Amino acid sequence: MQHNQQFFHAHHSPMGALASFTFGEHGDHGGMGLELGAPYEGNIFIGYQDGDGVVNSFPFYKGANDQSERYVQKDDSSTLTERTFSEVERDYRWASDTFSAPGISLKVLSPFFDIPDPALAQHQLLKQASCPAVYVELTLDNTSDKDWTGFFALQGEELRWNKLLDGDANGMVGVTCRNNIGLASNSKHTRAFSHFSVQSALSKMGNNECFMLGPTAGVMIDVKAGEKVTVRLALGFYLDGNVTFNRAMQYYYTQHFTGLNDVLAYALRHYDSYAAIAERADKELLASSLNAHQQYLIAHATRSYYGSTQWLFDGTQSVWVVNEGEYLMMNTLDLTVDMLFFELKKNPWTVKNTLEQFLTQYSFYDEIFDPANPELNFSGGLSFTHDMGVSNNWSPKGESSYEMAGLDRLCFSHMTYEQLTNWVLCCGLYISKTEDRAFATEQRGTLIDGLQSLLNRDNPEPALRDGIMSFESARTEQGGEITTYDSLDHSLGQARGNIYLAGKSWAAYLAIAEVLNQLGETEHAAIALQAAKRCADKLTESFDQELGYVPAVLDGHSKSAIIPAIEALVYPYQMGLTEAVSETGPYASYIKILKSHLKYVLNDEYCLYPDGAWKLSSTADNSWASKIFLNQYVAREILNIPEAFSVEADAAHQRWQTEGASKHACCDQFSSGKPIGSLYYPRCVTNILWLDEK
Amino acid sequence: MQHNQQFFHAHHSPMGALASFTFGEHGDHGGMGLELGAPYEGNIFIGYQDGDGVVNSFPFYKGANDQSERYVQKDDSSTLTERTFSEVERDYRWASDTFSAPGISLKVLSPFFDIPDPALAQHQLLKQASCPAVYVELTLDNTSDKDWTGFFALQGEELRWNKLLDGDANGMVGVTCRNNIGLASNSKHTRAFSHFSVQSALSKMGNNECFMLGPTAGVMIDVKAGEKVTVRLALGFYLDGNVTFNRAMQYYYTQHFTGLNDVLAYALRHYDSYAAIAERADKELLASSLNAHQQYLIAHATRSYYGSTQWLFDGTQSVWVVNEGEYLMMNTLDLTVDMLFFELKKNPWTVKNTLEQFLTQYSFYDEIFDPANPELNFSGGLSFTHDMGVSNNWSPKGESSYEMAGLDRLCFSHMTYEQLTNWVLCCGLYISKTEDRAFATEQRGTLIDGLQSLLNRDNPEPALRDGIMSFESARTEQGGEITTYDSLDHSLGQARGNIYLAGKSWAAYLAIAEVLNQLGETEHAAIALQAAKRCADKLTESFDQELGYVPAVLDGHSKSAIIPAIEALVYPYQMGLTEAVSETGPYASYIKILKSHLKYVLNDEYCLYPDGAWKLSSTADNSWASKIFLNQYVAREILNIPEAFSVEADAAHQRWQTEGASKHACCDQFSSGKPIGSLYYPRCVTNILWLDEK
Repeated sequence: MQHNQQFFHAHHSPMGALASFTFGEHGDHGGMGLELGAPYEGNIFIGYQDGDGVVNSFPFYKGANDQSERYVQKDDSSTLTERTFSEVERDYRWASDTFSAPGISLKVLSPFFDIPDPALAQHQLLKQASCPAVYVELTLDNTSDKDWTGFFALQGEELRWNKLLDGDANGMVGVTCRNNIGLASNSKHTRAFSHFSVQSALSKMGNNECFMLGPTAGVMIDVKAGEKVTVRLALGFYLDGNVTFNRAMQYYYTQHFTGLNDVLAYALRHYDSYAAIAERADKELLASSLNAHQQYLIAHATRSYYGSTQWLFDGTQSVWVVNEGEYLMMNTLDLTVDMLFFELKKNPWTVKNTLEQFLTQYSFYDEIFDPANPELNFSGGLSFTHDMGVSNNWSPKGESSYEMAGLDRLCFSHMTYEQLTNWVLCCGLYISKTEDRAFATEQRGTLIDGLQSLLNRDNPEPALRDGIMSFESARTEQGGEITTYDSLDHSLGQARGNIYLAGKSWAAYLAIAEVLNQLGETEHAAIALQAAKRCADKLTESFDQELGYVPAVLDGHSKSAIIPAIEALVYPYQMGLTEAVSETGPYASYIKILKSHLKYVLNDEYCLYPDGAWKLSSTADNSWASKIFLNQYVAREILNIPEAFSVEADAAHQRWQTEGASKHACCDQFSSGKPIGSLYYPRCVTNILWLDEK
Repeated sequence: MQHNQQFFHAHHSPMGALASFTFGEHGDHGGMGLELGAPYEGNIFIGYQDGDGVVNSFPFYKGANDQSERYVQKDDSSTLTERTFSEVERDYRWASDTFSAPGISLKVLSPFFDIPDPALAQHQLLKQASCPAVYVELTLDNTSDKDWTGFFALQGEELRWNKLLDGDANGMVGVTCRNNIGLASNSKHTRAFSHFSVQSALSKMGNNECFMLGPTAGVMIDVKAGEKVTVRLALGFYLDGNVTFNRAMQYYYTQHFTGLNDVLAYALRHYDSYAAIAERADKELLASSLNAHQQYLIAHATRSYYGSTQWLFDGTQSVWVVNEGEYLMMNTLDLTVDMLFFELKKNPWTVKNTLEQFLTQYSFYDEIFDPANPELNFSGGLSFTHDMGVSNNWSPKGESSYEMAGLDRLCFSHMTYEQLTNWVLCCGLYISKTEDRAFATEQRGTLIDGLQSLLNRDNPEPALRDGIMSFESARTEQGGEITTYDSLDHSLGQARGNIYLAGKSWAAYLAIAEVLNQLGETEHAAIALQAAKRCADKLTESFDQELGYVPAVLDGHSKSAIIPAIEALVYPYQMGLTEAVSETGPYASYIKILKSHLKYVLNDEYCLYPDGAWKLSSTADNSWASKIFLNQYVAREILNIPEAFSVEADAAHQRWQTEGASKHACCDQFSSGKPIGSLYYPRCVTNILWLDEK
């Protein structure tokens, strides 16, 4: 790896704790963060003082930050020579992240695995899955003839630390802050310390190892001349009590751990099993046929997904939340539908859990109107809110934190139509992948209502339906709906007449038809299939021979070419409805024109950047990495378009993260490779689909 | 008031909640802060949109801070003309702070009163005293012919708000954040709102009044043309569960209030009684014979004291903590001894509570050594730690957060000798003011041990004692002790031979003698009096005729002149031992030389700044306001020195706060009127003594 590609921030997170040990960028803030939408603004000091007294560190901190001058009239601190390691290697795998430099190796494990269904699984497995810890192995190889002092320390301006005291320590050595974060080791080589800085501690300013006024703390590691010492550390997170508001819930891990010290002790006791899990994940990804760029992107996306997950307990049962990265919106439904593929592979119960939350708390029946006649409302039907709240604040029943009335196709408007397709598609895929018959039966009425709602939004008058959305939700108060591409231009941002969204409604009709057929609701299923056909036909006939593609918005004006015209093919394909996406099946013409469409636009005249990176819309320099990954899968696996197999594109997309977004630990939204929003984001796990490619 | 004197930050705090609504500075951050060592870094928007659409506000915010561009691709927000009020009057009283501008008046009440002894008092009185709220009266006087919309709003980058929902609201209108802070009204004129900013809410960007993604929230107030509306608001604070670490404790108010909404409802329900309490305090100070500068300084100090107080509950009983301002050290004993006079007036039980905490958790018996022979230890005796911890982290038993071994008379060294005198003086004054016989009896052994410890630190060999400290605690590990003037030069900073500290030991001997005599321990009392005499004689004979004063450190080198030579006279005087401080009593010579000393140095050649402000040491440009106030009292009330009655000095000391430290809501440590440490500090309530001056 080149210098500028090896230093980038990455999440290192337990599953479901909305917690992250974020580090890896050069000379920037990082640390252990709880419930944050960005890397913790602290500093990380890892290295050793060699026999000449020189302090050698990895560059994981922003300048020196010694607060002693706040208290001391004169500068009495000794001077130490400091140096950051010049030769640093990084080995970034699915569940391990290893930095090596002369004499030192730092391996950080973020093991992830299938979280068992909490309604069914054994206590022990749930404890294992919910343990809010990250695992660190620090090796110091002192081949010199003088003793070294190694250190692993965290600093944060407002942090004050407690040393683990004998009574609570279970033989561990370590430090904690407010019982919320802490680190511990059970190695005999370690000593806990807290001080103004690593430097002030090493220079023995005062003889207290644990000086409580200092914002820096961690462990010192004694390494004698000629000795090689490996120390294991657990980094633990813990938030007690009710952490959500409007509806009070606790972290699920509080059901299994009495507090931070319990977490630290458990993590150290089970280090071997977590390390084995991490190693299995590393090997699985390495053994795939994906190129190094793709493997990087999957590893990076996976970390950022888990860093955003929040496994809660409402007093009766588990509540699964994925927070929307920097925005911290809870269970944003247009993200759920993208992260679906990952969750269905790992823990399908979380999909069901989220669907049920939407149904009981965040569904509604609205009215709709024709924008040509906004005063006249019609019955609309079932749909779902954009999200469930923000920053641990559950939004009121039937409302999202994001959607605002009175906006006409602008950011923060309602996403009623899109969220309806999203819920239906999640439901269809969940049933198809899990064969959860009981759940399917329960959703009979919902799916029938969803079908009617989709039809009404095409046109309340059946004879006037053309297959795509034409009516707006009255919740916009005479405004206009948008799509998940909310901050893009109207090529993808507006909902009405949008071919991306139309594709999703086609897929939603198919999903409804499939499940209702299984439930014996053949009449409704037939209506759904009829609607799917109508939609596909409308899209097919909208292919503009002159342009060479289907314009993004079927309003007679749009000339934008967009990649996501093909996006929705993923749903029937993943549901096993291969006929539906076949060039010889019932939607053959639609599939063929999508293929022509994509072939025509997948070049740098329309939808590629000069370096081969994908550009979702020809008219906007604004792309979402997660959506690119999803559309790449469709283009390669379903449409088999040769231009979509491009190592150059993968390399470019890796650079977006490692160079463009190196401070943001996985970013979704880019403009020419520069991050412009959706930082610290969970959505890029759409790339898990690549592992399925034949 | 002039412009530059009317805008300064002030705490507005409940008692014992370590919480503050800090505001008042022009164009700077402020807001509702919990457990902070500085003003909350938010913004406060208070004003009204007039009939022409212009938004008029008080200047309590740092620039505009509209986050909408974080989400919106283009700038779609409407433009509004904004204006800050140009004519603002401030009326700053003991418990009310009123800002007036054309059409608007804002009155913020921070009522304080005697907190009853929780071991004895009625539930109802304790509830009243612990209610963690601040009270706001906002009046909008719309004499125009167009409707106005008033607003009171708080903003903080990471804050996300919930509207009070009907079920929980008890008829209130308001907003809360994480159930930790919130504001509510029960006026029919108010509507709750949350949005990106006041501007985006007023410009009706979207129709949602409570947009959950916005960091700004509060109430809008409808004021029709010609109408005058007064709205009462409660600002509430609440932190649930264990808030301290190492030893878990909760806020005392959690014993009386179920949560934030309960606090808000109670505060509004009892608004009248709190307003009456505030008014009584205002009147009391106004009725005093103190000049306006002195009244200002008392009001300012009182606010900052309460903002630092933390009334906890350990599961069995109340635990009183005063946090050390920006440093957040808990119950720093050399502050306790200064705030003692205030606490003995208001709630003497807090003094007893603190003394008992020190005794059970933070006392020890050490060894001592002669600095000339540091390898040889002698038995020292009883003393106390500097503090009890920091930032809600209790330090381990017998240790402070501050004191570090291995330092020779540098900041962070041990303060063993000074803290021993401090505990003894607090104990003596508490017993003398309260006549708490039971407590006195309990302290018999402690006071005898304290006496022996003081004597040993003079010299373990009785024959060699000269009355002042000569031996260092072995806890310094062959370093040297310091005093509360820790960051001053050695004139006040070093403990050994220091005449400020020697004065305190004289007073400590007197206090011990007084209490032990009352307990019938006449033999020990006589030893104490003998020691007091020895100390006074030593100081008297150290008067340097050539210099014209007693040099600060009796080491044969020091030439510094210090005001605090006289400081310790306050203790016997306040204990009623008027003979001891009389020019005709048993220490007549000592008192006379102190008088000569002060008269000689109280001029701008030695210990006055050119503007009349006091300078504690002739050799250091570093003064503590709290200590100045204390020494002013001694100089005027006890020594009756005419030069100490100076309105010019009071005016200068007011300017230190209103101009120098306008951002720091009461600062203690100044260099030529510029704040250099001890910001946001509770200690300045030493000036409560001024109210006793005859």
